[in-house]
Amino acid sequence: MHEQALLKRIFDRSKGMSAEVVIGPGDDMAMLRPEGWSFNDQEGRPGGGGVLLAVDQVVEGVHFSREAASLQEIGRKAVARCLSDVAAMAGRPKASLATVVLPPGMGDDEAMELFEGMRVAADTFHAPIIGGDIAAHHSDGHPMSCTVTVMAEATGRGAVSRFGAQIGDLVCVTGALGGSLPSGRHLDFQPRIGEGILLHAILSDRLHAMIDLSDGLGIDAGRMIASDDSMQIVIDANRLPCHDEIDWRAAVSDGEDYELLCMVSPGELPDRILDCPLTVIGTVRQRPAGDASAVLVESGGVEHGVDGLGWEHGS
Amino acid sequence: MHEQALLKRIFDRSKGMSAEVVIGPGDDMAMLRPEGWSFNDQEGRPGGGGVLLAVDQVVEGVHFSREAASLQEIGRKAVARCLSDVAAMAGRPKASLATVVLPPGMGDDEAMELFEGMRVAADTFHAPIIGGDIAAHHSDGHPMSCTVTVMAEATGRGAVSRFGAQIGDLVCVTGALGGSLPSGRHLDFQPRIGEGILLHAILSDRLHAMIDLSDGLGIDAGRMIASDDSMQIVIDANRLPCHDEIDWRAAVSDGEDYELLCMVSPGELPDRILDCPLTVIGTVRQRPAGDASAVLVESGGVEHGVDGLGWEHGS
Repeated sequence: MHEQALLKRIFDRSKGMSAEVVIGPGDDMAMLRPEGWSFNDQEGRPGGGGVLLAVDQVVEGVHFSREAASLQEIGRKAVARCLSDVAAMAGRPKASLATVVLPPGMGDDEAMELFEGMRVAADTFHAPIIGGDIAAHHSDGHPMSCTVTVMAEATGRGAVSRFGAQIGDLVCVTGALGGSLPSGRHLDFQPRIGEGILLHAILSDRLHAMIDLSDGLGIDAGRMIASDDSMQIVIDANRLPCHDEIDWRAAVSDGEDYELLCMVSPGELPDRILDCPLTVIGTVRQRPAGDASAVLVESGGVEHGVDGLGWEHGS
Repeated sequence: MHEQALLKRIFDRSKGMSAEVVIGPGDDMAMLRPEGWSFNDQEGRPGGGGVLLAVDQVVEGVHFSREAASLQEIGRKAVARCLSDVAAMAGRPKASLATVVLPPGMGDDEAMELFEGMRVAADTFHAPIIGGDIAAHHSDGHPMSCTVTVMAEATGRGAVSRFGAQIGDLVCVTGALGGSLPSGRHLDFQPRIGEGILLHAILSDRLHAMIDLSDGLGIDAGRMIASDDSMQIVIDANRLPCHDEIDWRAAVSDGEDYELLCMVSPGELPDRILDCPLTVIGTVRQRPAGDASAVLVESGGVEHGVDGLGWEHGS
């Protein structure tokens, strides 16, 4: 099973989404502007605002193991992954909902640890948990899972979709990449909420598209231009901001970095956003006829197709 | 583990919810009015509006079995349960999100059946699925689960909390009760969305409190006055609208009826809402000192405490 293909098949049946749905399935978050609702953002700016919604889940044995992470870390990660989607839309978190399915033997104190991890992460990013549900499996060995929904607001500038790349765009990334699982960074990463909003404020209409890197640069970059085979993303291996002792292949494929990848029209760029480095790592160009690769990494004069480098959950 | 007690313990830590949270954890849905947002409802009525959010999950082996229900029925139920929460707030559904965790061997066609059940239910009640996530277990025998989030709008009249009962109120219920599991009604019930909105429109401020009956009349009625031990709900067994061959004990305890239970100040009442009967089944009175029961059923001149009659998931 391929999650993306299956989701596409599912959502293709939902013809005729209402006009209230500004951004439908397939982006980092969906966006709605229900009839009769109006939005002034925190700066009092009307216009582009709207409700952003996303949901994400972590499942024991698929996304985490109890041996490798504490309950608090698992709870934190479940919320932080969802907040990373808010960052990718340049949105501002407002509230979250959490459901868990617990193993049959788990005591209240352990359940509290899990929720405490969720609560602290949610409160830190101003998305308090305002509802939820708890169920317990009836059989030993059935895996734990947490599902988190986040509601956010699009600022008056609107939300940044993952799909707006244009030929000639610079490809930029926040922070550094690679080695997230062995280093434990996948448990304590900071969702780039402030960075996303600020990038949007600084670059305005020059910020064409943005995504958060969850499954790996190769696969996530490819998703940004999946619907348009006239484009190709070319990344310079020498410019990739890699964590210590990480080579470019790992940086492209490891996944779980939760950094922001964005496509920006050429021009001046800050080299930091808040405390976070911003690096130009490549460009978007016209795809040569007959070339199947959406994403290439150029290293030592050779171009490597990296579309498939990363993780697709559910496959 | 007792879900309600655990949820209370969890949410008690979240002190100082923002002023944007109008209704916090513990009700059928949470309600937000984010700063700078304004709401005119479908009838152009401003004032009471806001964003309603709730999440619910169904887990194989806990809430359903694959032998007793088709995948489409399971998907439908997952969405309809969540929409029943919208009905309980007298809200209007706007959008939904769905996540599933599938068994490792499930093919795309089976997954599509599950989603088709969700999609049809969501579209029928104007809450299109605008986002979601699919994961697959890595081990055979790990149970399937579906989590559904619904966003709704409170009408200009505001949302109806479950907690507003007053001494002297009439206790009313829509439809008929009992036998939901053996009859299969738990798979094809209609969330009382229209009935909830219309009850609110007709009764206005007389509609003090409302809940949907998911776990059983005994336990759900008790939840409506859980925070106030000065009140007691007394139900007349002879007035209970029971399904065929269901006695009052089953009607009070079976659960999964997804009918609306509401507390209304005395006065005239319609005996139908849309196509659905509305029945006065009891009253709210002052609780006698020292009486531990929140909910009583009077049958043949004897009063039976029924607080515990129903299902608490997670216990």
